[in-house]
Amino acid sequence: MARRLDAKADDFETQFADLLAERRDTTADVADSVSEILSRIRTEGDRALHDLTHRFDRFDTGQSGLALSSADIAAAEGTLDSKVREALAQAADRIRAFHTRQQPDTLDYVDDTGTRLGQRWRPVDAAGLYVPGGRASYPSSVLMNAIPASVAGVERVVMTVPTPDGVINPAVVTAARLAGVTEIYRVGGAQAVGALAFGTETIRPVDMIVGPGNAYVAEAKRQVFGTVGIDTIAGPSEILVVADGANDPAWIAADLLSQAEHDPVAQSILITDDPAFATAVEAAVETHLSTLSSEAVARASWDDFGYSIVLPDLRDAADLINRLAPEHLELAVAQPDDLFADIRNAGAVFLGRHTPEAIGDYVAGPNHVLPTGRAARFSGGLSVYDFMKRTSFVACTSDSLQAIGPAAITLARAEGLPAHALSVALRLEDRE
Amino acid sequence: MARRLDAKADDFETQFADLLAERRDTTADVADSVSEILSRIRTEGDRALHDLTHRFDRFDTGQSGLALSSADIAAAEGTLDSKVREALAQAADRIRAFHTRQQPDTLDYVDDTGTRLGQRWRPVDAAGLYVPGGRASYPSSVLMNAIPASVAGVERVVMTVPTPDGVINPAVVTAARLAGVTEIYRVGGAQAVGALAFGTETIRPVDMIVGPGNAYVAEAKRQVFGTVGIDTIAGPSEILVVADGANDPAWIAADLLSQAEHDPVAQSILITDDPAFATAVEAAVETHLSTLSSEAVARASWDDFGYSIVLPDLRDAADLINRLAPEHLELAVAQPDDLFADIRNAGAVFLGRHTPEAIGDYVAGPNHVLPTGRAARFSGGLSVYDFMKRTSFVACTSDSLQAIGPAAITLARAEGLPAHALSVALRLEDRE
Repeated sequence: MARRLDAKADDFETQFADLLAERRDTTADVADSVSEILSRIRTEGDRALHDLTHRFDRFDTGQSGLALSSADIAAAEGTLDSKVREALAQAADRIRAFHTRQQPDTLDYVDDTGTRLGQRWRPVDAAGLYVPGGRASYPSSVLMNAIPASVAGVERVVMTVPTPDGVINPAVVTAARLAGVTEIYRVGGAQAVGALAFGTETIRPVDMIVGPGNAYVAEAKRQVFGTVGIDTIAGPSEILVVADGANDPAWIAADLLSQAEHDPVAQSILITDDPAFATAVEAAVETHLSTLSSEAVARASWDDFGYSIVLPDLRDAADLINRLAPEHLELAVAQPDDLFADIRNAGAVFLGRHTPEAIGDYVAGPNHVLPTGRAARFSGGLSVYDFMKRTSFVACTSDSLQAIGPAAITLARAEGLPAHALSVALRLEDRE
Repeated sequence: MARRLDAKADDFETQFADLLAERRDTTADVADSVSEILSRIRTEGDRALHDLTHRFDRFDTGQSGLALSSADIAAAEGTLDSKVREALAQAADRIRAFHTRQQPDTLDYVDDTGTRLGQRWRPVDAAGLYVPGGRASYPSSVLMNAIPASVAGVERVVMTVPTPDGVINPAVVTAARLAGVTEIYRVGGAQAVGALAFGTETIRPVDMIVGPGNAYVAEAKRQVFGTVGIDTIAGPSEILVVADGANDPAWIAADLLSQAEHDPVAQSILITDDPAFATAVEAAVETHLSTLSSEAVARASWDDFGYSIVLPDLRDAADLINRLAPEHLELAVAQPDDLFADIRNAGAVFLGRHTPEAIGDYVAGPNHVLPTGRAARFSGGLSVYDFMKRTSFVACTSDSLQAIGPAAITLARAEGLPAHALSVALRLEDRE
């Protein structure tokens, strides 16, 4: 059973501070194993991939080849339930529509000195998408990771996905095709990250690697960062639901459980102004739990990390929300925009009683790859911008350099950088 | 003397690949010392700051206080040369004007299903700016790091700068005031990064830490990443100058030296289509070097890491440039826009013969904190966006949930996440 905190209690601030300081990450120290695997990929290339895939996935990529052929993909897609295929297509369309609105504009102008200034955005040349194998191999995550790359205009969108025992997940390859993935390799683990970062005979290197994975994959991404760009390292999922007493407790209980069922260390928190409603939600959680195939995981998360927080007035919730900086925030109240105006820190916000968080996981449109562990204080969800980079530019004329050059010379000299000063001064002297 | 590569040589591709693979970073392994310092800051707070500052900077912050008072600042500013003050003010105005154009727009729309979708940008609550002490304490970097935070609307812009032997750099504190820094603490090293990330009795924690520093500072930023956001870890500086034979060799030589003088492991590369011009530039480099107070550093960089590359046709330069992905790129040719159109990977580009790179270091307007070590393949310069984060939002109506909810239920079931499906299904059933 989740813990209950009462904002009127004397020790509330202490208890809330403890909640904030709670660490749910279970970080295994796999740095050395990962470093060894990455070094094998750099020196042995494909041979290391074949060997490690044989060992970890019990599958002979030397025989099958590392790439999934179009025949492999078509065969797998053929086995997918048509309802799931249609749902994936609808989701892909909606995700693409939202992300298309994220495309940034070029800036290019001439200022009053006659200096031309601007910045231009270009896609990265190649993006790598890591997709986990087994149960965490979510087709929705393939859509959410690959579509922003495709919308950004990335030429090569390269997916790696392990196929343990040779089994290909039909929904994952279908999602890949819908999302615009251009190459698929059947490898996983740190070795897949290494192949994407450094390249092998078969897999050309990429510039940016995204996607979730286990401790080995996360550590591999950390270690290759710098050689390539990476997205953030995701921690356990979280939801914060703000709900007044006018909600159906069964709906709110289901929302809390939709995060709890992801992971025993996921966290679900309810904030309400109605203690009786909190009790009703807690009861509904128990009722739902007994019906769910995900009961064990969801119960562990709710019992160990779940909270109900009762406040006298939900208008006071903003401060607690901003301190928690949740990955997902539901505002299940009549006028959610009033509270939303005061929210500074949240990955994604779900407004009103008819917007369960799960709609954002699949079909709403915005990305479901979001900052966890209070990282919403300084970062947002995965986006088209992550697959692009800015180049700034300047063009002086002989006249405009005359206007701004002297200050540059003064500052360069003050900083003890004479060649900086000289490079400007030579061009100014030329006029005299 | 720099090496000369000739694109017509049989082994050019091998030599160019070697250039690309060259590592100029000198990474000291300071992880353990840094981890110990960070742990002392967490447990001892101010006391550890006083102690470490006394040890490393020979200065008693227990006596002076950790914060620079407004009297300290005014006294230091009073000693600054008025010409430098005016140059800093002009630079600050121009940097602010450029960065003001980076402010992103809110997205908020209703799609054809009646679902409201969008994203909103907010500044981080507090940003920390690390400024090194001693010779690398550049006032221009204070402007470049703090102004984007100030333009983003960050409430607390907190600067740390060591004051070895108690000496305050007048240009640095003047730049801080011009840039909108709100708090200054006279601490440095890994301990300053720790104080910004975790907070102490005197220094409240921030959400994002930026700024250059030595190996200890870089490692400290790496270790606190996740607790706070960080900018990228800067490597040695680089310039790539593309110049035809119509340039003044003395100008181009000064441009190459303006990066070389930063660091013995900085890199300056000339690409030209005129071997005689390359020879003239190399001669001009020697002439300039003997006049520079930065000769020793600049000569080491030019001799060890400098290159001249001669191509038959500068129109073929784009491929080499994109593979090098330089931090700074000068296009000193008659029609720079033609070549610029083909450039995908560069941090900042300087167009035409009258735009020396140094103008971008000080007064042009765009940021001088730029990706190094080929990171321009996947990232751009420091910007207002780095001090803001996006929050996405969704609001379904009962009707719009009816339109998009069924696909979410199908996908949640296919992914084995029944509580996700339930949270949507309960809201749909309510209509029936």
